[in-house]
Amino acid sequence: MTVVKSTIRNGVDTEQLFGTLDLIKAQPELARFQFRASNRWIDGAHNRSTIQGFYAAGGEDASRSEEFQLDAGEPAILLGTDTGANPAEYLLHALAACLTTSIVYVAAARKVQLTSVESTLTGDMDVRGALGVDEDPRNGFERIGVSFRVTGDAPAEKLREVVERGKARSAVYDMVTNGVPIAVEVATD
Amino acid sequence: MTVVKSTIRNGVDTEQLFGTLDLIKAQPELARFQFRASNRWIDGAHNRSTIQGFYAAGGEDASRSEEFQLDAGEPAILLGTDTGANPAEYLLHALAACLTTSIVYVAAARKVQLTSVESTLTGDMDVRGALGVDEDPRNGFERIGVSFRVTGDAPAEKLREVVERGKARSAVYDMVTNGVPIAVEVATD
Repeated sequence: MTVVKSTIRNGVDTEQLFGTLDLIKAQPELARFQFRASNRWIDGAHNRSTIQGFYAAGGEDASRSEEFQLDAGEPAILLGTDTGANPAEYLLHALAACLTTSIVYVAAARKVQLTSVESTLTGDMDVRGALGVDEDPRNGFERIGVSFRVTGDAPAEKLREVVERGKARSAVYDMVTNGVPIAVEVATD
Repeated sequence: MTVVKSTIRNGVDTEQLFGTLDLIKAQPELARFQFRASNRWIDGAHNRSTIQGFYAAGGEDASRSEEFQLDAGEPAILLGTDTGANPAEYLLHALAACLTTSIVYVAAARKVQLTSVESTLTGDMDVRGALGVDEDPRNGFERIGVSFRVTGDAPAEKLREVVERGKARSAVYDMVTNGVPIAVEVATD
């Protein structure tokens, strides 16, 4: 009789997860990653990013067979034609997606089987800043609210710990709360 | 003989643009906006945001007839199956899209006809932070590089001013450089 023990939990291969952690502990230089996006203006508020290659674990990763295309836009009240979610909404999506993935991976590592992870995010802004009609309001959101509902085969206290640890390890949560230095170069020919 | 003077420049209706600015100057309370995203975990690194309604100009905006659906994922090396761009890549797209839209709107307001706006963005990260194997590296990007190429019917100096002003007014550039307070709530039933 053979007992097959699955290493998949929450759709995450925990054997691969712990193997990756061990490898990076042993060879920290493999932890250097670079992600990229290329964007092209189409018309008005419509522009499109393409995303495919990235650098990871000591070399250029070529595992993605197709590029992702992401279209941005603005609603009519912000002079667009809804060619896509607007940039600030994409930022909310990036935050929601990162927190959720962190929570799912942490739960997998801690042997918590999740049944659902749902969130709603809100970002409040005074558009006088971004429109340049008043110098006082900042351009971006003054605050972001995130409301999670998480269920699984663990007590509420354990689920809250998983969310807390997921938040503490999320790349986008770190960037949006703490900020990142941005260097902008411009060519005009 | 009728002379029709178009108010459209770079795909932006400049008459509407200046009308919106005048309206918000006169009634600053109309500048309160709230954007939103709802996210649901699907499996592993795969989760999906839906984006549709928002609050703007004194009421709930119902002009969008359809919701946007955005799928996130991770590549194989980060234990996913490429169900979408990853959250950090979405953040790069949000930044590219916002800077580009700001540049296009500023150019329209300043009577600069653009012919192209292209950008490439890079974000460097040491994944030991987000994977929790070392406390030293931060979780997110250490730095973001943005390289713009902008062409149009204006001298290089004028084009550079437009980019500079676009950067100074971009909502996502502000958020990613300066950070935003985030409040996270959790329910477990």
